[in-house]
Amino acid sequence: MREFILRAQKAYTTEFNLDDLPNAGRIDLVCRCISNAVFLSNDLRRDTIIHVVLEGPKDPPKIISFNGNDLKDFYFDEKNIARIILKALKKGKGLKSGEEVEAHPGVKISKKSFEQLVKEKSQTQLIYLHEKGIDIREKEFKENVTFIFGDYTGIPKKTENFLDNNGAEKISISNKMLFASHCIVIVHNELDRKFLLS
Amino acid sequence: MREFILRAQKAYTTEFNLDDLPNAGRIDLVCRCISNAVFLSNDLRRDTIIHVVLEGPKDPPKIISFNGNDLKDFYFDEKNIARIILKALKKGKGLKSGEEVEAHPGVKISKKSFEQLVKEKSQTQLIYLHEKGIDIREKEFKENVTFIFGDYTGIPKKTENFLDNNGAEKISISNKMLFASHCIVIVHNELDRKFLLS
Repeated sequence: MREFILRAQKAYTTEFNLDDLPNAGRIDLVCRCISNAVFLSNDLRRDTIIHVVLEGPKDPPKIISFNGNDLKDFYFDEKNIARIILKALKKGKGLKSGEEVEAHPGVKISKKSFEQLVKEKSQTQLIYLHEKGIDIREKEFKENVTFIFGDYTGIPKKTENFLDNNGAEKISISNKMLFASHCIVIVHNELDRKFLLS
Repeated sequence: MREFILRAQKAYTTEFNLDDLPNAGRIDLVCRCISNAVFLSNDLRRDTIIHVVLEGPKDPPKIISFNGNDLKDFYFDEKNIARIILKALKKGKGLKSGEEVEAHPGVKISKKSFEQLVKEKSQTQLIYLHEKGIDIREKEFKENVTFIFGDYTGIPKKTENFLDNNGAEKISISNKMLFASHCIVIVHNELDRKFLLS
């Protein structure tokens, strides 16, 4: 299983205007990550889950998880994905800490922190991007692997320390500053190649 | 210079509803390609131009070119890019064959066919994706290179023949069926690596 965790520190957690995603704490960026994580041109990526951790106003944190194996009635442009996020936020209203509900086929929302989620995934190979990390092309990946990304605000130093303490490994994928949505595409491509050859 | 040509056979060429991009002949897909072609997380890709060839109703063909070096007031989510496309289509109304106008800083629109554009770029290294192409990682690229992509309808056989007759070379980048917008990310990453090392 390939899993992605996107920590979106500004993304709104109650409601937002579907016609103005950038001003909803950059929900547009979140949507692009989801789209690139779970869609192929002719299918869904059935071996992939992406968890987006929304930490903006007014009821943080909320985690929405999209499972490529179970998604239905799901279209890949930003606005349609944002519509599903909004639907999930409505379903998740009033959730207590640790609770989770299904909001749409293949989409669950939970009241949980980034740190809790990472700890839950600590039995998988945890990976995050760092300029001093090992080149992704040289890195060996396990079958169950979780990639952790920050949004446009990056991964704070404190979070890096937390990840290091939980056994996360660092990789690098480019000499350029890429968006998380770009990194997801490159990670998928690398794993597609590695697991084709292995 | 890196150039991309996206042939969008259904994309609308006069006007469309900014709040429903998929039903404008998949303008959402066109926007994602533009975003991935010209944006880094912290800058524009100043060595990159993407030409989108719109061939849908009601006044095909129209070519809109986005030059990363000259773009201003340009935001990277789908709706804001679509807004610039719409602005360009309005400025390009009534253009005669071969004519071109600037529609926005870094954005030009012309009345020109896909074939004409490819012929203009034939002094660069022309590349298109094909499952039997050479693996992108094994391929050598020239400094001036133009990558040609189809949209979700793919590249028709007739177009493949036209490209072959104009000296285009074939590459492959994945064993999976990816979106053109994904391919652009992977092409950039490969060239970033190759030209860093050379």
